[in-house]
Amino acid sequence: MQSTKRSCVPEMEEIIGKEFKVLDKGFVRLIDYMGDDSAIVQAARVSYGQGTKTVNEDAGLISYLMRHRHTTPFEMCEIKLHVKLPIFIARQWFRHRTANVNELSGRYSVIKDDFFVPESHCISEQSKDAKQGRDKAIDPHKASMISQQIESHALDSFAKYNHLLEEYNLTREVARVILPQSAYTEMYWKIDLHNLLHFLSLRMASGAQKEIRDYANVIANDMVQKWVPKTYQSFLDSRVNSVNFIGQDLEHLASMMDRDKLVAFVEEHRNSKKGVMRELSDKLSKLIPANNRVDDGDNL
Amino acid sequence: MQSTKRSCVPEMEEIIGKEFKVLDKGFVRLIDYMGDDSAIVQAARVSYGQGTKTVNEDAGLISYLMRHRHTTPFEMCEIKLHVKLPIFIARQWFRHRTANVNELSGRYSVIKDDFFVPESHCISEQSKDAKQGRDKAIDPHKASMISQQIESHALDSFAKYNHLLEEYNLTREVARVILPQSAYTEMYWKIDLHNLLHFLSLRMASGAQKEIRDYANVIANDMVQKWVPKTYQSFLDSRVNSVNFIGQDLEHLASMMDRDKLVAFVEEHRNSKKGVMRELSDKLSKLIPANNRVDDGDNL
Amino acid sequence: MQSTKRSCVPEMEEIIGKEFKVLDKGFVRLIDYMGDDSAIVQAARVSYGQGTKTVNEDAGLISYLMRHRHTTPFEMCEIKLHVKLPIFIARQWFRHRTANVNELSGRYSVIKDDFFVPESHCISEQSKDAKQGRDKAIDPHKASMISQQIESHALDSFAKYNHLLEEYNLTREVARVILPQSAYTEMYWKIDLHNLLHFLSLRMASGAQKEIRDYANVIANDMVQKWVPKTYQSFLDSRVNSVNFIGQDLEHLASMMDRDKLVAFVEEHRNSKKGVMRELSDKLSKLIPANNRVDDGDNL
Amino acid sequence: MQSTKRSCVPEMEEIIGKEFKVLDKGFVRLIDYMGDDSAIVQAARVSYGQGTKTVNEDAGLISYLMRHRHTTPFEMCEIKLHVKLPIFIARQWFRHRTANVNELSGRYSVIKDDFFVPESHCISEQSKDAKQGRDKAIDPHKASMISQQIESHALDSFAKYNHLLEEYNLTREVARVILPQSAYTEMYWKIDLHNLLHFLSLRMASGAQKEIRDYANVIANDMVQKWVPKTYQSFLDSRVNSVNFIGQDLEHLASMMDRDKLVAFVEEHRNSKKGVMRELSDKLSKLIPANNRVDDGDNL
Repeated sequence: MQSTKRSCVPEMEEIIGKEFKVLDKGFVRLIDYMGDDSAIVQAARVSYGQGTKTVNEDAGLISYLMRHRHTTPFEMCEIKLHVKLPIFIARQWFRHRTANVNELSGRYSVIKDDFFVPESHCISEQSKDAKQGRDKAIDPHKASMISQQIESHALDSFAKYNHLLEEYNLTREVARVILPQSAYTEMYWKIDLHNLLHFLSLRMASGAQKEIRDYANVIANDMVQKWVPKTYQSFLDSRVNSVNFIGQDLEHLASMMDRDKLVAFVEEHRNSKKGVMRELSDKLSKLIPANNRVDDGDNL
Repeated sequence: MQSTKRSCVPEMEEIIGKEFKVLDKGFVRLIDYMGDDSAIVQAARVSYGQGTKTVNEDAGLISYLMRHRHTTPFEMCEIKLHVKLPIFIARQWFRHRTANVNELSGRYSVIKDDFFVPESHCISEQSKDAKQGRDKAIDPHKASMISQQIESHALDSFAKYNHLLEEYNLTREVARVILPQSAYTEMYWKIDLHNLLHFLSLRMASGAQKEIRDYANVIANDMVQKWVPKTYQSFLDSRVNSVNFIGQDLEHLASMMDRDKLVAFVEEHRNSKKGVMRELSDKLSKLIPANNRVDDGDNL
Repeated sequence: MQSTKRSCVPEMEEIIGKEFKVLDKGFVRLIDYMGDDSAIVQAARVSYGQGTKTVNEDAGLISYLMRHRHTTPFEMCEIKLHVKLPIFIARQWFRHRTANVNELSGRYSVIKDDFFVPESHCISEQSKDAKQGRDKAIDPHKASMISQQIESHALDSFAKYNHLLEEYNLTREVARVILPQSAYTEMYWKIDLHNLLHFLSLRMASGAQKEIRDYANVIANDMVQKWVPKTYQSFLDSRVNSVNFIGQDLEHLASMMDRDKLVAFVEEHRNSKKGVMRELSDKLSKLIPANNRVDDGDNL
Repeated sequence: MQSTKRSCVPEMEEIIGKEFKVLDKGFVRLIDYMGDDSAIVQAARVSYGQGTKTVNEDAGLISYLMRHRHTTPFEMCEIKLHVKLPIFIARQWFRHRTANVNELSGRYSVIKDDFFVPESHCISEQSKDAKQGRDKAIDPHKASMISQQIESHALDSFAKYNHLLEEYNLTREVARVILPQSAYTEMYWKIDLHNLLHFLSLRMASGAQKEIRDYANVIANDMVQKWVPKTYQSFLDSRVNSVNFIGQDLEHLASMMDRDKLVAFVEEHRNSKKGVMRELSDKLSKLIPANNRVDDGDNL
């Protein structure tokens, strides 16, 4: 332990270096972090200056920034993780290009025989109608056979890999081509909070592959929630739990509204002192047919 | 005119090199473009392969990609513009970091005395309650005086700039510090379609400064709409005209629904063959209180 | 063939769509391009304005930009390729984050049984002293055995993959974990010229893995050289064939110089009209010990 | 002061929050940092694993990474600064797109009347032959007049700006267009070490504008040198003080070498245990004409 003048989050200090287990042999480990909720507020107040005075509380300002897509203050926090994960997940992970990465190289190192084997209860059939993903679970007996086949094939692959290295002294960069995508790799991964939240919103979603969702959930629940609790709360409310109605949905939605309640609500909150209610009033007013809308002007 | 095997958009060919006027002396000019709606579809079919077969038509696939935030296929199109714009707008513009830029340099060149003067009818008071932006228009006489003051000050600034250059042969990189932010600059700006749409969604929005909105609208209406009409239509529907209800809005929204119509709609469309209706059914089901939701299982 | 006003490069038009074979089953295929040498010059002249007048010829200006790390004009050209490559190479490739990518997804599609098998004459021992890479070739008989083992293991892996899909209808996103890294994948890859040259300078270098060098060389020789011949020439001269002496090298280098020739050369070219010679004179002057340097001032 | 398990640099802790003055009214202030020299080594050892064992010492490994352009480990450190700088410098600064920025917004806040006035001894004539930059100093009397004109014009601009705000309540986003580019702005700026070194290598260079060089030098000398001393030393040696001979320089350079000393040096160090000397031997061997090169094979 050393002394620092930098912003500190005691809940994060407690978990530095701790391995949070994911999948059968993977983990996420917090290495370092920069900033906290107040660093976001501090940066926002530089940008918006006097404009932020009307929002007195940090939680309110953070929620305002999140709702209005003022994303740059969230870039002022940074996190560095050590992650052990299977290659097929790493390949999805690296599609997020705005992070810094140092991954174990199979050109320099001999890859240890660690590989992912899915647990039986996670083994499902290919979905027929959805374009990706899993459908109903496969029966336990068959699932167990599948797991065993995946495991024995991986053992065989690593045995052959090691044979090529030991018997022929084959260069590592070529020998590794026989390793399966279930092989575990490791990386240091560093990313700012804005881009991390984007990663989480995509990888925690139901359409994401179950195995990367497991990692995303650990990062979200065991780290981000502790690190920046106000931001995380806003993120859940404004992003994860939000419902986005596209243009062509609106007519349908409008047809299901109780018109009187709708008009009354819009009227009541259109000048609310609470930004969230004022904004909701604005959104709802789009559901009132034009000829029903309250006239702002003089109607003699 | 030359012959090419690359994808071509006749509507775009017609406007290559044409100056679309913006503000008093600015313009946007199309220099080059790469790809079109079908290039997006082509890239998506490589990624999603068999998965895309269920969506037969290009417009349907593009809409699906847009709704589900599969953003990478939209990065497969690229556009290059020549833009003349005032420095205070350029400074907002450059906050979008995912573009390529070549801007006129005041270190190398003598800046021509072109500067922006707001038209009287665009001159407004500072908004009191909003955190930024304009409120009611200032009366025409005063507005005209303001325009004149801005203009005469810019004329004076350029006169002094030219005096410093001519009288003292002062180095340009220092002389320019007296130029106002209304001075026009020029740039070549190149960006992919995904990032351009992001730029447009922020800069066409009502919260954006009126002067940059003028540029965004020209790019959207006179270029993007012609370039990738199917994508632009999806963008309008899924982004510009969408309404996003955050988590805390949902309870209010639910309380204004006609419960019977809501339940009936969800039931009717939950297995619709049309993806958009199935998705709408999913969204709406979140508005049905848990104890009212249709049970998926057996209810004896 | 269609007509276009955009800049065209006839040599590129000829190869659009053509497969350039790489490795045993891979390829690179040109899909689209934007800009050419003159587009770089055009953008540079916007930036540097009057400054570029002293460099009259395009090749001279391009060489100046390359030597002086004025990189933004090279970002004004863009290329889009279709690449088929083994996964272990794709994983190196994707470390270059400034490109746009659409890759075949093993979640959506069944992966075809195409895999890389190294040719016998490319099979080498692990280097002992170098930190990575290959040393002496393995004798042909053993190399042939290695190739066979890699091939038979890949065949076995794909057989098991297909068995899991067909026998159990296992979801594709899990079944793929047993596929080896030699499996081929495909992608659309789009990148600007500046970042492509950076990719090439790293991946054509002798330290890069032989298999990715093969791709880099095809892109360089069969595409970039035709696309932007002046830029490519400058790239070879200023980057690929340059020699960078670090600070601690300079004393050694100085000690091996013929002092008289050195001083004479520096004197002769210090005010040369040719920028390249003036710059060389500057560089060489750092090799002359301070007490030997020509005095710029008055020496009575 | 709080306790942390994160890596700490005592020399950096001492200067957190301290304003380092730059120009007449600007400053750079350290807000936060992540990592240190050992964090770079730690990340590199994950990537290169066993490969790094041959380089035992941190300084040696860092120098190796820097020389061989293994840039990703340097991305594992991050720094956050608070900078006050004139707008014309901010515009150069923001061309570096790989940083996070929160800048004071003239839409939200009234800009304070702080502006840059060049000191007399920094006032020079426009260079005639160079494409940019300054030539000989202007005589003190004239320089003083120039300073005064710049100052009085800025005072006048701010007076008019404040008049527009107070007299007409003109919206801030329009009023600011009359402010000169000498006006100071403020920002929070966050960047990783790799990209910071790139920024410094360009902005400390003699071709950069003097005013931005002043900022770069403060960041380099007062911050980076304390933060990551081993990395900074390698940066100076491998980047700042290196000399890059391009392809067409080599023939000239070769013609000035003392051939015997050159050959002897190459021979002596070609298998040196010191990587730097082995690499120098490699570089120098390119200066030996092909027919003079030592034959590696058998020469009967």
